[in-house]
Amino acid sequence: MDQVNEIKSDIQIAQESKMTPIRDIVENLGISETEWEPYGHYKAKLSLSLMDRLEKNKDGKVILVTAINPTPAGEGKSTCTVGLGQALNKIGRRAMIALREPSLGPTMGIKGGAAGGGYSQVVPMEDINLHFTGDIHAITTAHNALAAMMDNHIHRGNELGIDVRKVVWKRVMDMNDRSLREVVVGLGGPLKGVPRESGFDITVASEIMAILCLAADLKDLKHRLSKMVVAYTSDDKPITASDLGAEGVLTLLLKDAIKPNLVQTLENTPALIHGGPFANIAHGCNSVMATKMAAKLSDYVVTEAGFGADLGAEKFLDIKTRAGDIDPDLVVIVATIRALKMHGGVSKDNLKEENVEALKNGLANLEKHVETIRQFGLPHIVAINRFLHDTDAEIEALTSWCNEQGINVVLADVWAKGGEGGRELAEKAVALIEENDKNFTHMYDVNESIEEKIKAIATKVYGAKTVEFSSYVKKQMADYARYGWGNLPVCMAKTQYSLSDDPSKLGRPEGFTITVRELKPSIGAGFIVALTGDVMTMPGLPKEPAALKMDVDEEGRAVGLF
Amino acid sequence: MDQVNEIKSDIQIAQESKMTPIRDIVENLGISETEWEPYGHYKAKLSLSLMDRLEKNKDGKVILVTAINPTPAGEGKSTCTVGLGQALNKIGRRAMIALREPSLGPTMGIKGGAAGGGYSQVVPMEDINLHFTGDIHAITTAHNALAAMMDNHIHRGNELGIDVRKVVWKRVMDMNDRSLREVVVGLGGPLKGVPRESGFDITVASEIMAILCLAADLKDLKHRLSKMVVAYTSDDKPITASDLGAEGVLTLLLKDAIKPNLVQTLENTPALIHGGPFANIAHGCNSVMATKMAAKLSDYVVTEAGFGADLGAEKFLDIKTRAGDIDPDLVVIVATIRALKMHGGVSKDNLKEENVEALKNGLANLEKHVETIRQFGLPHIVAINRFLHDTDAEIEALTSWCNEQGINVVLADVWAKGGEGGRELAEKAVALIEENDKNFTHMYDVNESIEEKIKAIATKVYGAKTVEFSSYVKKQMADYARYGWGNLPVCMAKTQYSLSDDPSKLGRPEGFTITVRELKPSIGAGFIVALTGDVMTMPGLPKEPAALKMDVDEEGRAVGLF
Repeated sequence: MDQVNEIKSDIQIAQESKMTPIRDIVENLGISETEWEPYGHYKAKLSLSLMDRLEKNKDGKVILVTAINPTPAGEGKSTCTVGLGQALNKIGRRAMIALREPSLGPTMGIKGGAAGGGYSQVVPMEDINLHFTGDIHAITTAHNALAAMMDNHIHRGNELGIDVRKVVWKRVMDMNDRSLREVVVGLGGPLKGVPRESGFDITVASEIMAILCLAADLKDLKHRLSKMVVAYTSDDKPITASDLGAEGVLTLLLKDAIKPNLVQTLENTPALIHGGPFANIAHGCNSVMATKMAAKLSDYVVTEAGFGADLGAEKFLDIKTRAGDIDPDLVVIVATIRALKMHGGVSKDNLKEENVEALKNGLANLEKHVETIRQFGLPHIVAINRFLHDTDAEIEALTSWCNEQGINVVLADVWAKGGEGGRELAEKAVALIEENDKNFTHMYDVNESIEEKIKAIATKVYGAKTVEFSSYVKKQMADYARYGWGNLPVCMAKTQYSLSDDPSKLGRPEGFTITVRELKPSIGAGFIVALTGDVMTMPGLPKEPAALKMDVDEEGRAVGLF
Repeated sequence: MDQVNEIKSDIQIAQESKMTPIRDIVENLGISETEWEPYGHYKAKLSLSLMDRLEKNKDGKVILVTAINPTPAGEGKSTCTVGLGQALNKIGRRAMIALREPSLGPTMGIKGGAAGGGYSQVVPMEDINLHFTGDIHAITTAHNALAAMMDNHIHRGNELGIDVRKVVWKRVMDMNDRSLREVVVGLGGPLKGVPRESGFDITVASEIMAILCLAADLKDLKHRLSKMVVAYTSDDKPITASDLGAEGVLTLLLKDAIKPNLVQTLENTPALIHGGPFANIAHGCNSVMATKMAAKLSDYVVTEAGFGADLGAEKFLDIKTRAGDIDPDLVVIVATIRALKMHGGVSKDNLKEENVEALKNGLANLEKHVETIRQFGLPHIVAINRFLHDTDAEIEALTSWCNEQGINVVLADVWAKGGEGGRELAEKAVALIEENDKNFTHMYDVNESIEEKIKAIATKVYGAKTVEFSSYVKKQMADYARYGWGNLPVCMAKTQYSLSDDPSKLGRPEGFTITVRELKPSIGAGFIVALTGDVMTMPGLPKEPAALKMDVDEEGRAVGLF
């Protein structure tokens, strides 16, 4: 983030903060000794048995934080999520935060960390950004165990008749490693497996991550794992994890990863950080279990979904709420002056200059996302996440426009001021929820055809004019109907930078066509992925990776995370 | 293990045990609140700062547990290590255990678990056998981060001039996955890296694992990581992790993994389980830090080394004691009637039948290992690890032979009886240590040439007649001398099943030649690996992997580990 030099870095602020021992936070939440486990003095895992005990408790209100289409200027969605949670506590409400776990790959690549920012962070940020409680490593292990069991099955006679050209289960690594995108495995002769083309995805793109995030409990987890499709026979019969006898060991490998992780914010607000599925090929929200647990433990849960409202919020509202039977109460749409100016045509290098005109041009992007949330029937607030170089004229232009349109708008200064900077946002959120003027509806009926569901999302959420399906996709849709996969929700894989499938089209493009080039079944997760354009499931490192600056100091403390 | 049906399985015994909260064990050891972190209620990590505080404490006595050459009949070295630790406490001595961390790959393959057995186990065995405290996952991540940074360097211009045909740093996974032994990475065009041949090792074979186990502290860890050789230029100049600027981020990724893990045995004896390097291409011993920490916290440390005394004990005594400045006091050589009968020519299916003659034939193997330990100048005891079908006549034949040879011998019944079954062993151990009749010496001087060091091990420890070096190795030895690597200890990679390099030669082969076919530099770990025969660094799964039986029960508890 582009702030002046005197301002402290995120890691500096985090390392100077006074954390409450996690034991005290656990006890404040009324959680008993057998319902949690410490991971160090400032992290905990909460047992699933806690949900059974709390079953009859009233559910807290669910606030979803989403954003306009992201730009390189940054939106600060996590920062606003943390800030709003802190602010709700500041105004005397019991609130918890439910976030995604950062992936190490991007942390070592460009991002350098993902745990909020400034005075609205979750801590211990070093742990959260590194191995945390090992959930992602457990998913890596489970995913690759299934791959090893499948290749072993093929190597030892292939009784199931897997067509090695039709294996869809790749391997994963929590790493940005482009050299693993396409590989040939099984080389070296008869002792080294059967040669075939394959590749690696980043772990957070694993279907197992999506499953962990959508499972209701351990039993449901196992059931979902059993349904994952790993390959096809030469006559196109799907082969599942269950055919390989793998669901038991995979569940065993995930038995601790399934438990939500409790940490705190800089202001000691309790935060559950659990699960982090890719927001493009998966649904991009933290786990159902964490969100529901937070709702049982507090009066307000503030949670977020990946990328802009076209991707994350749509998936939260059409996929996660269905899987978890979650009834959302309010949506906060985060926008920044900087990002709106980029949507209005300003280049990244000129963002510090005041430019009300460009800002006004960029408002169309925000406008579309507001319309989308209205279509979902949910109350909403635009939160302006304040940055240092925002001018009064720019802020005034944005707020005036919102007021003219009848859109609730609040300036949030949570990066610089923590919860204090989010008081107005918190008060507005509470007021809107208490009005209870909502009429939540999904964007499509799951029983429509795959084609109809994709069309509904593309036209209603993206504002597309038409949808084109490749002939391959048409064949896939017919196959999927035959396999009995037709009535699953659709998880769109689309560039996050544009409402269209062309990342260069900022603002609010119109009259465009969405082209669906391929479907992928995520039967265990419970959705069909529809791919538009090229979607990268294994990122690469930049020329100068953030990893080069990372280190430990003399006392063994982390350096270079931000 | 082949015991009668009525006897409980290891996991049953472990799950029925009454564990003491780790907090109580920590407090009993006099460790203060800032010197440890809980990982659940029954595991802890101990801070390295603890060593600074204890620096001036007296060191406890170090007992190394080793064995005859392993056979499929099993020796139970970990079981005896745990049993002896428990027994020492039973006779009123303050003892701790220092063991290696099990690797998930073999656990899911054939082994099913590795945390001792019967009533001499470390617990919680499920956690120890699964993800434990995440150390191995951290090593996987660090290893693969270096690979990704190297391939990214090559992809982005290759300023260091790495010859892609001379990359020696592979990737790793904690999995038995033969299909990854030989792969081609970087396929798919210019966005997907530079194509080259490569492969995956199992994580415990990573040089980083060996480094973690030999490092003195965090600073030494970083220094060692910087020296790892990853590739060569076309004119054979070594390229290191430091040339890639990677040592900082690797140290950061390992900052928690470097802390020893505290658990307990079934009898609540404290046990440090930390590090688990491959016993063939690495030194096969738990970490120096854990062993030294245990010595500062107790009067006796019982620790083990991988495979038989020809491999593990030799490396413990020639590599680990040098790296860690450890002064061992006693060696326990574990033997079983069953394994000795196999060395004497009995097949695996006929082990239940009494066969004193075969036993006597197999004694030559034990005899050689006793001679080896005598050459190291250390007091020693042969511990007969009792199995159910051992007959009185067989036990009598073994003990008589030891008595005739003047070898200390004790029957240990720790599998069935826990510490109580090891009383005699513990008393003998204490008596021998108090006699203090030792004259510890290494098998070679590190300043000898690589050739001389290998010859010393092969002739004195294996009983080989001659050593042959391939012309490739001769060239390597000249190169290594030029690179300044000549005065490092040698880490032999040899089959564990035979004293020779031919796994079919059981007992005590004579007049054989050891053929060294390749050297590998582990400059960060601080040794040169000498490979004899084929050494597999990535295991495969059997036809029916143990993973197929693994699951969780209704309460979420582990099933199928053993």
